[in-house]
Amino acid sequence: MSGVDRSDRPTSRPPTDGAFGSRIVALADRLAELSESRDGLTCTYFSPAHRAVAANLREWMQAAGMTAEIDAVGNVVGRYAAADPDAKTLIVGSHYDTVLDAGKFDGRLGILTPLVLVEHLGATGRRLPYHLELIAFSEEEGVRFATPFIGSSAVAGRFDPAMLERRDAGGASLDDVLRAAGSDPASIATLARRPQDLIGYLEVHIEQGPVLLEEDLPVGIVTSIAGIVRQLVTVRGVAGHAGTVPMAMRHDAALAAAEIVLAVERRCGAAPTLVGTVGRLAVRDGAINVVPGLCELSLDIRAGDDATRDAAVADILAEIGRIAQRRGVAIDTKEILRMRAVPCAPRIQARLEDAIRRAGVRPRRLPSGAGHDAAMFDDRCELGMLFVRCGNGGVSHSPRETAAPEDADVAARVLLDVLLAFPASP
Amino acid sequence: MSGVDRSDRPTSRPPTDGAFGSRIVALADRLAELSESRDGLTCTYFSPAHRAVAANLREWMQAAGMTAEIDAVGNVVGRYAAADPDAKTLIVGSHYDTVLDAGKFDGRLGILTPLVLVEHLGATGRRLPYHLELIAFSEEEGVRFATPFIGSSAVAGRFDPAMLERRDAGGASLDDVLRAAGSDPASIATLARRPQDLIGYLEVHIEQGPVLLEEDLPVGIVTSIAGIVRQLVTVRGVAGHAGTVPMAMRHDAALAAAEIVLAVERRCGAAPTLVGTVGRLAVRDGAINVVPGLCELSLDIRAGDDATRDAAVADILAEIGRIAQRRGVAIDTKEILRMRAVPCAPRIQARLEDAIRRAGVRPRRLPSGAGHDAAMFDDRCELGMLFVRCGNGGVSHSPRETAAPEDADVAARVLLDVLLAFPASP
Repeated sequence: MSGVDRSDRPTSRPPTDGAFGSRIVALADRLAELSESRDGLTCTYFSPAHRAVAANLREWMQAAGMTAEIDAVGNVVGRYAAADPDAKTLIVGSHYDTVLDAGKFDGRLGILTPLVLVEHLGATGRRLPYHLELIAFSEEEGVRFATPFIGSSAVAGRFDPAMLERRDAGGASLDDVLRAAGSDPASIATLARRPQDLIGYLEVHIEQGPVLLEEDLPVGIVTSIAGIVRQLVTVRGVAGHAGTVPMAMRHDAALAAAEIVLAVERRCGAAPTLVGTVGRLAVRDGAINVVPGLCELSLDIRAGDDATRDAAVADILAEIGRIAQRRGVAIDTKEILRMRAVPCAPRIQARLEDAIRRAGVRPRRLPSGAGHDAAMFDDRCELGMLFVRCGNGGVSHSPRETAAPEDADVAARVLLDVLLAFPASP
Repeated sequence: MSGVDRSDRPTSRPPTDGAFGSRIVALADRLAELSESRDGLTCTYFSPAHRAVAANLREWMQAAGMTAEIDAVGNVVGRYAAADPDAKTLIVGSHYDTVLDAGKFDGRLGILTPLVLVEHLGATGRRLPYHLELIAFSEEEGVRFATPFIGSSAVAGRFDPAMLERRDAGGASLDDVLRAAGSDPASIATLARRPQDLIGYLEVHIEQGPVLLEEDLPVGIVTSIAGIVRQLVTVRGVAGHAGTVPMAMRHDAALAAAEIVLAVERRCGAAPTLVGTVGRLAVRDGAINVVPGLCELSLDIRAGDDATRDAAVADILAEIGRIAQRRGVAIDTKEILRMRAVPCAPRIQARLEDAIRRAGVRPRRLPSGAGHDAAMFDDRCELGMLFVRCGNGGVSHSPRETAAPEDADVAARVLLDVLLAFPASP
């Protein structure tokens, strides 16, 4: 079937009293009461709290007028069907699992925002020209099995069956956990959507950073999900007595490490979407009166595109080589992760930009430095992401994470605008 | 009584066949066989190995013609008496305890070098115009009770009775340990020598650094025992997601710490006897994907004189203040140790220099960055120290510590020269 162009203003006007935002935050508060920890919010894969959240979500989806079920890996899949059973499908969603001691919006904002829109559409009897699938992904954070994206990888057809053998801290395998929950792990392969049935993937997510906050904007358009290179760096110098080795005769591992830390900052400050972090830094067996002989550090380098990132990594590795030579220390680097950047579709970015303008907000494009379920749909369909301002300095993965109801409301209105205008075929 | 000037060449000529050096190393090897660890050398305060070393030393002192006893804190005190019972006393010595997995010359070289000289003097029937006390101090390293100088502080009249309540890792107090060994802790105060009876304190010690090795010199004259200031530094920045916080918005604790580490090197490289070390450096709870919020480090700043050291400490603290302001982080510093520098007596340095010249060696003066028993005798009598070249790059506190018999021989001949020329009254 041919596309339906709805780039004109939507005919189903959203409420202007902030009702979307209030309800999103109220629902997030209710989900946050379901925690496996006594204090704060922790909701890891297939914990009792996690199952309770899934049950709530399914119930709310059904109440909104969707069919809804929980699939073999724990995703809650709601479907707001088009009149035409042969219509294609637009997926909206995000994850409902959390990190330990989490914020209540990370992931859930991308489930609850489309949920309240479907409630609105259902209440006004409005159908869309495509099937809208709202998927609450069961696992994105990688807490329980130390590997993320269990839920979205299954839907995107990227689930690796070897994952079933992975074990949690208690020794239970993913296979054990799924069988105990009544799932047949062999059926996971059938969860994969066919790319030819999809017209797109949209995800609303809290920014988890300070950019929108600093610029006083409620929402922003994600340009890409940054690619990541991670390296472990080991500096081997010569340990010595802190009192007896003159400064000029030292081969101090911590001094070389300090130069690396500052070189990462210098290089990664030189390009707009580039970020570089030394998150781990430690003198091994450090003593106050011993010149450090061994220092270990980590590198995490990200950028909106792979060329920018790889140029930075190459420059930093070259600088590490020069530091090693100048200081007479040995420095080993070991790459432990390389994920390529995932671009968001320019056409979807343009749709988001139009909708944001119509909401009276200045459009701001920014890369996502964090990984998201959306990345699983790379090469499966066009994808787009809408960021929502993160309060409290942009802190996330923390109980201090906040999102204002007013901002959630803008995100809901923008997403509704995009959904109503979205073409029914690519 | 008046001083006897013996600044002319000694009348008792030492052997020139290297016999002193060979015997010193042979005796060090024998003591190193007495260890509380299965592999390597560990000899901590009042362990069975420590008591066996003490018994050997007493026996060797007695065989050399000295009276010898073990005092209430475990020092082995040998006395090579002058003919005149009212003569004053010159103390020579060092410690026989070790660190864990130690070298065999640290401390012991300063016991065995004068021991072989007394063997030589006794064999040739030569008396000195002062009582020579050879003291093998029982404790200098501070391993068992986490406080050094138990042996030498008692002799120097600096023993703090509160020390008796200190407990080792097994819960035994120093008081318990001394009583179990048959000592009366109340008698420790009586071990203090009267300053008016002393004409000096001399200590031979392995350098524990690379200066003499780099300059190809067997021995060197210590100018002072460096004063030490130690600080603990805590940098509190703002933790953040490694992917989502742009470089310009970060308050990264590790970056501030890296600047401090390099500032210490820069400032302490600017004066000859000054050394500065960041021995501990760690991002607390560091994770590869988190911008560091908390980083802890240590400072150890030493110099041959207190003014040089204090100027460096002040400059470094001022620089830390500037770093904190520029990066928007909070930095706390806490001084945990301040020991003033102990100068070696210029007159004794001159005597050592003359003797070194007579041995055909270029005199080299250098500060001691490490602490030594000699420091306990500050203000009690004039003191001097002779350093012996440390092999293997200058490594000490390690089984790789080495001293060549040829170098020990030079040290012995220099010390003999000084002893024979030493005035009997100050």
